[in-house]
Amino acid sequence: MNDAATAYRLATETKLKDFTVRILASAGVPPDDAAIVADVLVAADLRGIESHGVARLESFYVGRIRSGILAPAATTSVVRETPTSLVVDAGNGLGHPAAKRTMLGVLDKAATAGVAFGAVRNSNHFGIAGYYAMLALERDMIGIASTNSVRYAAPTYGKDVMLGTNPWAYAIPASDEPPFVLDFATTTVPRGRLEVFERKETPLARGWAIDANGEETLDPAAALSGALLPLGGLGTERGGHKGYGLGLLADVMCAVLSGGPSGTALPLPNDADEPGKISHFFGAIRIDALRDPAEFKRDVDRELRAFKRSRTTPDCERVYVAGEIEYEKTERHRRSGIPVHAKVWAALERLASACDVPFDVER
Amino acid sequence: MNDAATAYRLATETKLKDFTVRILASAGVPPDDAAIVADVLVAADLRGIESHGVARLESFYVGRIRSGILAPAATTSVVRETPTSLVVDAGNGLGHPAAKRTMLGVLDKAATAGVAFGAVRNSNHFGIAGYYAMLALERDMIGIASTNSVRYAAPTYGKDVMLGTNPWAYAIPASDEPPFVLDFATTTVPRGRLEVFERKETPLARGWAIDANGEETLDPAAALSGALLPLGGLGTERGGHKGYGLGLLADVMCAVLSGGPSGTALPLPNDADEPGKISHFFGAIRIDALRDPAEFKRDVDRELRAFKRSRTTPDCERVYVAGEIEYEKTERHRRSGIPVHAKVWAALERLASACDVPFDVER
Repeated sequence: MNDAATAYRLATETKLKDFTVRILASAGVPPDDAAIVADVLVAADLRGIESHGVARLESFYVGRIRSGILAPAATTSVVRETPTSLVVDAGNGLGHPAAKRTMLGVLDKAATAGVAFGAVRNSNHFGIAGYYAMLALERDMIGIASTNSVRYAAPTYGKDVMLGTNPWAYAIPASDEPPFVLDFATTTVPRGRLEVFERKETPLARGWAIDANGEETLDPAAALSGALLPLGGLGTERGGHKGYGLGLLADVMCAVLSGGPSGTALPLPNDADEPGKISHFFGAIRIDALRDPAEFKRDVDRELRAFKRSRTTPDCERVYVAGEIEYEKTERHRRSGIPVHAKVWAALERLASACDVPFDVER
Repeated sequence: MNDAATAYRLATETKLKDFTVRILASAGVPPDDAAIVADVLVAADLRGIESHGVARLESFYVGRIRSGILAPAATTSVVRETPTSLVVDAGNGLGHPAAKRTMLGVLDKAATAGVAFGAVRNSNHFGIAGYYAMLALERDMIGIASTNSVRYAAPTYGKDVMLGTNPWAYAIPASDEPPFVLDFATTTVPRGRLEVFERKETPLARGWAIDANGEETLDPAAALSGALLPLGGLGTERGGHKGYGLGLLADVMCAVLSGGPSGTALPLPNDADEPGKISHFFGAIRIDALRDPAEFKRDVDRELRAFKRSRTTPDCERVYVAGEIEYEKTERHRRSGIPVHAKVWAALERLASACDVPFDVER
């Protein structure tokens, strides 16, 4: 714990956002877009999802802009629009602004029509899916978000790398309780987990990955040249076909529904110089289309509390509900600072120097 | 294989439906409702999901009607309705007719509005969720269906039985390929699987169940007095929190959104004399709200074929897509007869005799 604690330095939310905006601006990202990217990335760090936060600023965004792979000031265009739907082409720009504006459009449509859906094609990594689903919460709506991604995973019974980690996120408002926010990759673990285990020279758990021959492996290096397994693991005994189904569902709802590339038309991790070609999917349901929102939220509170108060299995402290741990971390990190790993801190410092931007994020 | 083959007798689809209708009619179910129940149950048998077909006719439906627990001719009422939503109270009637009519209402609304959602409360077991999602297919829509159920499962880190097997189903039309139909319980396995293993005196696989103390168990009897585990298994190492989240999501979307009982207000398996108190959730998205349907279905074909043609892991014949195996079984069973297990056959024969209905289903 001590090791882990000393490996982190604390940043403040505002400073970290301002810094991210300045870095992106130096790469040619317009201020409004940069503010959205910063908000999404720092939201991930606030929620304790370090893998999706500012740690990616260089490799996922600034680096790709500087290499000319990602358009910093892309022109987005509306592909199709009805009172209950919105499809946007992101013009190979940053995923976050295209995704946020599309979800806001979907929310506006749902505010009038009761429900609405949207999709974005020709986009790039958009950060955490939960961010966009959560935009529904303050409007008394249920939010849905998904994205496909670079390919990392094999289908059930298959060894070809065919699918991204393709997350689904659902956000449901509560009254006094924190909202229910379910945001999960449809693979058992994200690819970043394999990289962490490779660095630590620690064997993987079963159900995570196969090697290039399609055999289950506990060796991180073999797994990194193989494929992630879908949620449920190898074969069907533990339901791997369900995770695979949810991953393929995401690819269809994001990419096929928006007209973007899907399946094997998506890049592999090694195709670093390829545009993202990523697609997203969004939905919003106004609660009062189905039930009085105050009653609904009161009953969500009751439901979440029942789970939180239920009895635990041996050696477990308590039962959590989806989004609860991330909500508590957000509150804590807002109060006491956002922990940034020393290696990430150093990388940001180097990035600041390379971009000629002052590095001043410390709490 | 020989044993298994001789344990089955073949019925024809029409005869099995007619028989089911007559049995239900003898229990006081109105003809139109009985026809819907028969269609849903036989659809499960056609798809090879024997656990959800006519095998349940007595224990889940006729028996509960005769015990006065389930209303055979319930009055349903509309609780809330907008151009994009529909909430129905099923009056403690059979789940299938209430569910099918609500889904048809949702499809009609989506046909006008582009998208729509519905929910049903105060209902009972509705058979396979996929049946309702698939109603969207011929209308060039994407169908969504879910239900909560009697409680069988524990949440991650918990040992209390808090959730049903709470399935989610998604149906997506293709062009020449069979449709993509994903229909999965949010537990690793359904409870019926534990019962089968208990009868066979075979140990369970890991990731399926815990005993009453919350310890993972491979003993079917201990598991049956314990709880099912969510998809992903015990704890979080293999993503059990994701399956738990999807199960709780279903409970909220079905029950809290319709105003039905949720969580621990739902019956346990031993509460055989309690009304079902089950709720359902439905959704429909018109494809042309987001993309030209012909283009969409052409690209779905291409996507499904890419997966089906991808390379397999050792000892696997090929890669399947969701719904493919069930589609092939339906075609085969329509041509060659529906296999009904000898024990189920004998039970149906006894039920026929008790209801004074002729038993004539053999091919």
